[in-house]
Amino acid sequence: MSVVDFCFGRRLASDEQSGQKIGVLSGLPALGLDGLSSSAYGPEAALTIMLPLGAVGLNYILPITGVILALLAMLYVSYRQTIAAYPVNGGSYTVARENLGIWASLFAAAALMIDYVLTVAVGISAGVAALVSAAPQFHKYTVPLCLGILALITLLNLRGTGQAGAAFALPTYLFIASMFVVLGLGVAKSVSSSGHPHPLAAPPAMPAATASVGIWFLFQSFASGCTAMTGVEAVSNGVSAFKEPTVMRAHRTLTLIVVILAMLLGGIAYLSHAYQIGATIQDQSDYQSVLSQLVRAVVGKGWFYYTTMGSVLAVLCLSANTSFVDFPRLCRLIAKDDFLPRIFAAVDRRLVYAVGVLFLATASGLLLAAFRGITDRLIPLYAVGAFLAFTLSQSGMVMHWYKRMRESSKPEPKCSEGSSNGDQGQSKRGRASLHLKLWVNGLGAVATATALSVILAAKFIEGAWITVLAIPTMLTMFQLVHRHYLSVEKQIESADPMDVTHEEPPVVLVPIHCWDRLVAKAVRFGMLLSADIIAVHLSNLEGDAAEDEASQMRQLWAERVEGPTRGAGVLSPTLEMVRTPYREFITPLLQHIDVIKGRYPRRLVVVIVPEIVEKRWWYALLHSRRASRLRSALRARRDVRVIVIDLPWFIKD
Amino acid sequence: MSVVDFCFGRRLASDEQSGQKIGVLSGLPALGLDGLSSSAYGPEAALTIMLPLGAVGLNYILPITGVILALLAMLYVSYRQTIAAYPVNGGSYTVARENLGIWASLFAAAALMIDYVLTVAVGISAGVAALVSAAPQFHKYTVPLCLGILALITLLNLRGTGQAGAAFALPTYLFIASMFVVLGLGVAKSVSSSGHPHPLAAPPAMPAATASVGIWFLFQSFASGCTAMTGVEAVSNGVSAFKEPTVMRAHRTLTLIVVILAMLLGGIAYLSHAYQIGATIQDQSDYQSVLSQLVRAVVGKGWFYYTTMGSVLAVLCLSANTSFVDFPRLCRLIAKDDFLPRIFAAVDRRLVYAVGVLFLATASGLLLAAFRGITDRLIPLYAVGAFLAFTLSQSGMVMHWYKRMRESSKPEPKCSEGSSNGDQGQSKRGRASLHLKLWVNGLGAVATATALSVILAAKFIEGAWITVLAIPTMLTMFQLVHRHYLSVEKQIESADPMDVTHEEPPVVLVPIHCWDRLVAKAVRFGMLLSADIIAVHLSNLEGDAAEDEASQMRQLWAERVEGPTRGAGVLSPTLEMVRTPYREFITPLLQHIDVIKGRYPRRLVVVIVPEIVEKRWWYALLHSRRASRLRSALRARRDVRVIVIDLPWFIKD
Repeated sequence: MSVVDFCFGRRLASDEQSGQKIGVLSGLPALGLDGLSSSAYGPEAALTIMLPLGAVGLNYILPITGVILALLAMLYVSYRQTIAAYPVNGGSYTVARENLGIWASLFAAAALMIDYVLTVAVGISAGVAALVSAAPQFHKYTVPLCLGILALITLLNLRGTGQAGAAFALPTYLFIASMFVVLGLGVAKSVSSSGHPHPLAAPPAMPAATASVGIWFLFQSFASGCTAMTGVEAVSNGVSAFKEPTVMRAHRTLTLIVVILAMLLGGIAYLSHAYQIGATIQDQSDYQSVLSQLVRAVVGKGWFYYTTMGSVLAVLCLSANTSFVDFPRLCRLIAKDDFLPRIFAAVDRRLVYAVGVLFLATASGLLLAAFRGITDRLIPLYAVGAFLAFTLSQSGMVMHWYKRMRESSKPEPKCSEGSSNGDQGQSKRGRASLHLKLWVNGLGAVATATALSVILAAKFIEGAWITVLAIPTMLTMFQLVHRHYLSVEKQIESADPMDVTHEEPPVVLVPIHCWDRLVAKAVRFGMLLSADIIAVHLSNLEGDAAEDEASQMRQLWAERVEGPTRGAGVLSPTLEMVRTPYREFITPLLQHIDVIKGRYPRRLVVVIVPEIVEKRWWYALLHSRRASRLRSALRARRDVRVIVIDLPWFIKD
Repeated sequence: MSVVDFCFGRRLASDEQSGQKIGVLSGLPALGLDGLSSSAYGPEAALTIMLPLGAVGLNYILPITGVILALLAMLYVSYRQTIAAYPVNGGSYTVARENLGIWASLFAAAALMIDYVLTVAVGISAGVAALVSAAPQFHKYTVPLCLGILALITLLNLRGTGQAGAAFALPTYLFIASMFVVLGLGVAKSVSSSGHPHPLAAPPAMPAATASVGIWFLFQSFASGCTAMTGVEAVSNGVSAFKEPTVMRAHRTLTLIVVILAMLLGGIAYLSHAYQIGATIQDQSDYQSVLSQLVRAVVGKGWFYYTTMGSVLAVLCLSANTSFVDFPRLCRLIAKDDFLPRIFAAVDRRLVYAVGVLFLATASGLLLAAFRGITDRLIPLYAVGAFLAFTLSQSGMVMHWYKRMRESSKPEPKCSEGSSNGDQGQSKRGRASLHLKLWVNGLGAVATATALSVILAAKFIEGAWITVLAIPTMLTMFQLVHRHYLSVEKQIESADPMDVTHEEPPVVLVPIHCWDRLVAKAVRFGMLLSADIIAVHLSNLEGDAAEDEASQMRQLWAERVEGPTRGAGVLSPTLEMVRTPYREFITPLLQHIDVIKGRYPRRLVVVIVPEIVEKRWWYALLHSRRASRLRSALRARRDVRVIVIDLPWFIKD
């Protein structure tokens, strides 16, 4: 077993692809982690905004969560319809591509790509926030911890989704179970104490109010809290990862995810209010995440606390995996349409799109480093990307149903008389159903667009501008890539049959510095190509020394080459001398190539460079890399009449 | 003027070499800086050892300096003889190579190379020590300062010796002048105050004694102080850098250097004792170099102090230049004997040996970083290397004179009767002179060997072991390089005339994925080489899709290629289909190459890979690098029967 196999698993054949597909129970961790784990940072993000209001702010968390849950419900219905209509990968990109045109789809693609990158960054930073809440001594290592976890996830994903999914199931279910225990217990205690439960471990006291309640705070808080919804689109983007019947399994998975998420969000909001738990500041060393305070308050700081926080850490960090599943698939779709470099479409030996995985890892790593792993600073960027993608996806679905309605209202060609009546009734019912679907997605589009406006207005200065700036940049890049591929295509495409007119053989040029087996091999190979072979001897000597060298070389050439060839009755390769006063190899050779091109203006010039190839790379340091240097120089000149052949000579150990 | 020209100066032709040579006045800075600047750290190194003795230690600095000066005088006489006998570069290496055999010479080469690296490291670290003595606020930037200065010197040297020499003359002469002023004034004050001058700025009080005087301290102090002599060999190693008459100019330069150095060392020792100046510890922030204390004590902390310290900083840092002149020349000599990679012998466009310069810069940079720029930690490594080189050079000279004596005592063939008498007299005087010279160098060898033993014994644990370990490592490397070059030479050398027996034309293989101009060009080029052309179509599709693709491709091939070729009456290139279930390009192609090799067991296989070449490198990211990947894979297989030709297709903007 090779090191590569050990690290990345054995290679998989193309027809093994279906073996990697998932069901509902494995789909929940693989595609739901992102959505569920949003509960760990969404409510906290909303509460962080309330900090200046002091304890008063907690009164508003319940209504804000209510609005968020309503939006979530709308999204659920919308995405159910999307899954049914598009049981393939791509989500927003596919939907927008088919219904709103190429530019809207690229717009959605850019939004989604940014969204995936931020999902990774926020997931990991919030995970580390959970870790340092439970173990404050690690607070100062926030950034290295973030980057280390990112590296680990990347490695897991380079091994392929299947194995990754299996490794992620346990923490997900542990997280759901322990959160349900905590929330259930908390709610029971709260109800039994008429809404004033006694915390087992008291949360830090709320700071005094420094501002008074205003509509702006509520908008801001809602905008931040919306990040609790991020990730619910993951299922619709990854439908094809499911086993048959895909739509049913995807629907069930989505339902499960949304119901659990809603319960978590509702429970957290209710208990923060009941236990008077507010946010703390993540860059301060006494930071305590909201979840950490809540779990401590309900069950105390015992083994259950640590288990729960461990599962929070795990799901948050692994939620990044949702992106690692979908991002490369999305990039592949874009690359197949020639808007991203084609290498993104190349499936590697393990059936994952390694370039996409590595690109995602790099981008989110840079974000984590730039924002020092502080979740709250990433939230504004995140909310914009997510809601932009939501809005585009919903708008695309509206167009989709609209087109379907127009199609179905066209008079259909009647094939059989007998069924026409039933058909008409069915068609009527179908139209009504399409109408309803259009309205559902339309409402979704309006709701997410409204939320997006609120987020943009509330978060522009705090970082949303970065996302707003990134999208046109990415669109420009897509466009440049596409234009270039088109231009290349145009230049190389050919509908003509091959030109079979006679072509004169090339002139062969062999740069030499002495007579040895390499030169012999090169000249002999050249004789296969052409009868006109010119050996070029480069010398940096001056005066008499140069004369001596030249005459020696000429004599050697006469003995070793001209004699035998004349004897065999073939044209002798000629020897030409070239001076290199500046001790260079490339420049004088290029000049001499030009001389020869002038001499034979209609023929190709083939330069054969004999090159020593060592068995071990460190021995290669002992030799000059003339052949590859010459090849680069000739390529830089873009001379279609010159072709370099480097003839390897393999040195034995 | 290009950026390269601006940074490194215009290129120089080979015959411009002599224009770069130096005289005595420019030789003193270029080859004497190292020797002279040793006075800035040698006495301090000796005094540092005395620290545990407190003020008592100062009593011993005069006798120790006396011994050092005696050794210096011996070295002077020895090196004068060496210069006269070997007016070429290489110093110890050349002398040992001709007289003690190849292994002794490589031993000397290794010692010298280490010595050069340490000269750079110690020069720069001591220079920065001078700087932070005058400006203590920079003390915490010791390492970055060291590395910055190193980078600057490297750049200067990549421009060539001539310009570097000119830039270095001013600080050298300023250093000599101001040190003479300080020492002269100090001695005058001391004499006029009967040996107890009053310091203008009091040096820090000597610490209380924590040890009592012992022979061990004296040995240690002598061993460290010996570094004051390092650098006097520079002239003998760089004789060929002088203008004609080289020997005379080199002699004068050496004399000048040694006399000035002796005066500096004597003066410093005398004044340290008179002013009661001891060493301080360089890694402590209140560090004051001995020279700094001394100059302050004599002339106070005014503008003259800063000028002097500035010149000390300059000469110390630039003393590294001595090594930058000689190290690449030495490497070139070794490389010409095939004991170092040949690239060390390659003179670049500015007539300097850039690889040697960069190698030296890297090695000394690593040392500076590893030892945190503290001179005192580098001293033990330095002393060993220097005295090893001294000893070998002297021993070589002894052998040289011995051989000369044996030659001259052989009966000479008598050519003319008349002059035989005079000849005999001359020969007698010559033998006597040779005898004397042998004794001089013999004494030098014994003295330096003795010093070396003392240094090794006194400094082994403190770092001399590193040098002791490095030398066999380098010798092993020399040997490995040499053996490899010999083996390559053996494999490629040929005394046979060229084989002109008829060779069958190769089979040409062109990997394709569709029909376009690239494929057309490749097939047409292949037709120049052979009539047997096989286009290989790789497909990763499965089942029906693969069948469809294959039949389409076959039809296209029939239309575009087979039709026209049949029409022209030439053999048609054939199309073969290969499946790639693992979505790979290289592996299936290699397998198919094997199939074809089996089919034509006596013919070469030429693989022509058409490749898109973009005008701008970033566009190259949009394409796969199949041709170069295939070339690497085939090279790794070391198959002499397969030759890759990548046929570039140049894309226009």
